[in-house]
Amino acid sequence: MAVPPAAPPLPPLVDHHCHGVVTAELGLGSFEPYLTESHAPAAAGTTFFDTQTGFAVRRWCPPLLGLEPHCPPAHYLARRREIGAYESTRLLLRGTGIGTYLVDTGIPGDLTGPAELAASAGAIAHEVVRLETLAEGVADTCGTPEAFVTALAEAVHDAARAAIGFKSVAAYRHGLALEPEPPGPAEVRRAAADWLAARQSGGRLHDPVLLRHLMWSAVATGLPLQLHTGFGDPDLRLDRADPALLTDFVKATDGLGSALVLLHGYPYHRQAAYLANVFPHVYADVGLAIAHTGARAAAVLAETLELAPFGKLMFSTDAYGLPELYVTGARLFTGALRRLLGEWVAEGAWSAPDAHRVAALLVSGNARRVYGLSDPGGDR
Amino acid sequence: MAVPPAAPPLPPLVDHHCHGVVTAELGLGSFEPYLTESHAPAAAGTTFFDTQTGFAVRRWCPPLLGLEPHCPPAHYLARRREIGAYESTRLLLRGTGIGTYLVDTGIPGDLTGPAELAASAGAIAHEVVRLETLAEGVADTCGTPEAFVTALAEAVHDAARAAIGFKSVAAYRHGLALEPEPPGPAEVRRAAADWLAARQSGGRLHDPVLLRHLMWSAVATGLPLQLHTGFGDPDLRLDRADPALLTDFVKATDGLGSALVLLHGYPYHRQAAYLANVFPHVYADVGLAIAHTGARAAAVLAETLELAPFGKLMFSTDAYGLPELYVTGARLFTGALRRLLGEWVAEGAWSAPDAHRVAALLVSGNARRVYGLSDPGGDR
Amino acid sequence: MAVPPAAPPLPPLVDHHCHGVVTAELGLGSFEPYLTESHAPAAAGTTFFDTQTGFAVRRWCPPLLGLEPHCPPAHYLARRREIGAYESTRLLLRGTGIGTYLVDTGIPGDLTGPAELAASAGAIAHEVVRLETLAEGVADTCGTPEAFVTALAEAVHDAARAAIGFKSVAAYRHGLALEPEPPGPAEVRRAAADWLAARQSGGRLHDPVLLRHLMWSAVATGLPLQLHTGFGDPDLRLDRADPALLTDFVKATDGLGSALVLLHGYPYHRQAAYLANVFPHVYADVGLAIAHTGARAAAVLAETLELAPFGKLMFSTDAYGLPELYVTGARLFTGALRRLLGEWVAEGAWSAPDAHRVAALLVSGNARRVYGLSDPGGDR
Repeated sequence: MAVPPAAPPLPPLVDHHCHGVVTAELGLGSFEPYLTESHAPAAAGTTFFDTQTGFAVRRWCPPLLGLEPHCPPAHYLARRREIGAYESTRLLLRGTGIGTYLVDTGIPGDLTGPAELAASAGAIAHEVVRLETLAEGVADTCGTPEAFVTALAEAVHDAARAAIGFKSVAAYRHGLALEPEPPGPAEVRRAAADWLAARQSGGRLHDPVLLRHLMWSAVATGLPLQLHTGFGDPDLRLDRADPALLTDFVKATDGLGSALVLLHGYPYHRQAAYLANVFPHVYADVGLAIAHTGARAAAVLAETLELAPFGKLMFSTDAYGLPELYVTGARLFTGALRRLLGEWVAEGAWSAPDAHRVAALLVSGNARRVYGLSDPGGDR
Repeated sequence: MAVPPAAPPLPPLVDHHCHGVVTAELGLGSFEPYLTESHAPAAAGTTFFDTQTGFAVRRWCPPLLGLEPHCPPAHYLARRREIGAYESTRLLLRGTGIGTYLVDTGIPGDLTGPAELAASAGAIAHEVVRLETLAEGVADTCGTPEAFVTALAEAVHDAARAAIGFKSVAAYRHGLALEPEPPGPAEVRRAAADWLAARQSGGRLHDPVLLRHLMWSAVATGLPLQLHTGFGDPDLRLDRADPALLTDFVKATDGLGSALVLLHGYPYHRQAAYLANVFPHVYADVGLAIAHTGARAAAVLAETLELAPFGKLMFSTDAYGLPELYVTGARLFTGALRRLLGEWVAEGAWSAPDAHRVAALLVSGNARRVYGLSDPGGDR
Repeated sequence: MAVPPAAPPLPPLVDHHCHGVVTAELGLGSFEPYLTESHAPAAAGTTFFDTQTGFAVRRWCPPLLGLEPHCPPAHYLARRREIGAYESTRLLLRGTGIGTYLVDTGIPGDLTGPAELAASAGAIAHEVVRLETLAEGVADTCGTPEAFVTALAEAVHDAARAAIGFKSVAAYRHGLALEPEPPGPAEVRRAAADWLAARQSGGRLHDPVLLRHLMWSAVATGLPLQLHTGFGDPDLRLDRADPALLTDFVKATDGLGSALVLLHGYPYHRQAAYLANVFPHVYADVGLAIAHTGARAAAVLAETLELAPFGKLMFSTDAYGLPELYVTGARLFTGALRRLLGEWVAEGAWSAPDAHRVAALLVSGNARRVYGLSDPGGDR
């Protein structure tokens, strides 16, 4: 079999779902918790560095800071502190190949916003507005259910003018087994009244009626709506985050003009890919799953590429906190993609031009089309 | 490691589950919808040719019509029209290696029947009767519930004399979470009365009592009963098509003499394989999943071959509409099988004679035993 | 790419979950049923030797009895009878590389206990007490609910002094969708009264209140609690054995000091690995799944190693009845581990020292830490 010609370089990546980075200097103890979705310290005798995530960070990040791959965590963190968090973040983000970041700004805490992230990365960034955070912010300033409902409508409307899309974490707050239809105005007002009465300032939104109302409000704007599905931190019950549970909502929103983007999905990513196959407005990514499965990223991506149409799957890192996770998310995804497509071309199942075209769709073209991105992307 | 000797040729394949082909001339717009289970056109900016199914068709079919693999869809379809649909169908079907087709005749539309398919393919074909279609046909001609129940019993009885097996699509109509026991006569009569009263001519059967009654009526004939499980078109809710939901029905029918054949199963094919392992009368296939996962067919087959006893898994294409899908279904399955068994022999996990014996069981022997086929199979 | 240096030898394995072996001489008909979880004979025209389990036994065991790999089952069993069951068992167990066995003694039937197994294997063995069997034994000798509850508490307390851990098969008896909180004393007494009144001597425990009471009683001892999850014999409904269903129980027991060990998990092993990732007291194994998937063991292990922290996954054979199953369980696991880690090192994703360290954790170190083993392990 002839060696296939070298693949052309990929365009700058569009990371269609990520978060901000922490700006504080980090030591071993403050770095490690970002390697897991767990809320708790690692069990006695174990460390979260001993995970696929930890090994991927040690594989890909030390060289960007001038060290050997796989050097011990303590060496890496010492070097990182020596360079300083600000400069390390720049070096790491500029080593990702990402040109455009779509940033979910809804996680509380001292994280960089889109502008700061873009400046650090030498890239372009847009905001994705998290619906539940938006609603909680509105609730903090509204005394009555009527005021809340009105102010929420205005907030969604305003957000839609500035943001590139919305995101829902209903999977965490209630699970995805929600009634598919939009709740009526009276039902929303009642749910708002109950929630506001029970709520203390900063309290989270778990009410299924209001979660549905938010999802439908986002759909009404015409912007893409990202939906967390599959694994995440232990706030969620894994089996209640199966994207198949969204099927009736997907059917109810078919033809309304908004794209639904099913994030992560793992271990139900085949279910997400199925929905992307049979419903025109459904898209999928495997962001978090790539970053957390490390040496197995190609296997997870391959499973997703079984049913997902090649115009429907998008790259993301779902990176949060550590600039290292943008590096691993990007390197693991592009490495997995090259490997799979290279194998399929080598065995004759795909043609090389098709493979190159599909690679460009997955890392950039699909997201540009779905989110209507006209920016040139950053130079990285 | 010594190179294993070349594998002996496979016997003519038995495609134990497929449908008819369309006879009309097809252009780009009328060909593409057959590449997906979706009811809708591809999303703006995307095409169903950009799927594993589309790539597999472009890999395997152009050479059978004298073109290069992976030529553009428009070239392929121009050539197909030049040759004509009739002759293209002959060339394609005769390139599959399938000698015997078991044809589910229950999909409405202008599709070839078993005899026409057999003639076109130079093969042998038998009919599989779809229970819900049978019941809907009976309902179209019966005025009273009593007449319906009696005529349905006769229709099942008559079908059992001509057909090689039955098929249920209860997964589409209600989902597989059905009561396991057969409904009593009064319950069936009541359900029939309700359905007939509400039904317009041509209306589909969704009533769970009647669906169970059909399944039990089929089991009573002693013929194999094929059950759709796993993914399919968006009429079904994926999570309600998990074959594990059939467990209690499987237990209730154990020892009655009819084989249950769990079709497709994906992404729950490991669940189907488990049931085939622990219940003697349960069999499995991965038809639709092979055709739709293309370059990943070997991975899906491998997952099924984890728990499925080698005497329990059967080949099918689940092809429908396009003769191309019989080609891809057959080539992908036999290619996947050769690859997996070759690897397992090469690493010493299996012996070569065992691998050859298992290959013959999967593509032909198991179906011949389960369906009691005594025909010689066609010459292809 | 340079060839990585040869991996150092593994330490003696700790099989943290297995059962006893049968001591009777076995022929074809009495050997075959141990190759499956089915209760029934193989379907007409098929044999359980034609499974991954059967092929793995034929791959690994004949050489330990002086025969060629893959010899026909009849040859193997003739040789086994010639050597005798006693000596065959010694030869097989001493070929496993297992130095320490943790033996679930709760399966009825004529199986060797831990001491006999240890003597035969030249290894060390500890007992794992099956909660449901313990409760059934207590029920056989207690006339009143009050006496039962008191005697059960004593029995758990006594068992905790001698045993290395507990095991629950609630997945078989009720499924894992149990109320997460411990039942109150009155509720337990009521459930005990109902069960004892309905029960005949030897009757199995299916009551969900008593199953929960047992699980919480075990947790209160501080010893590790093994929980069957995923596939097994047809007493269970597969979908009700998904470890994700245990999430609320996992949350309720977090921080109480007892480790929860999710056994098997397949085909939900990714769900089990997720729970091991996000909850500090959760551990996982894939014992039964390795033994039953044979040539696919590496694929199943790889899927588990996506999210499972490397300090959280443990080796087991779940072998039962046949000494052959300890051999295949051990060879398949260590072979799969060497293969995966070798690939990850070869492609640069992992470092070789990390791979060697993780291998030792998985086959021995994690179990030694979790179960507090201070024994040296046997010499095999």
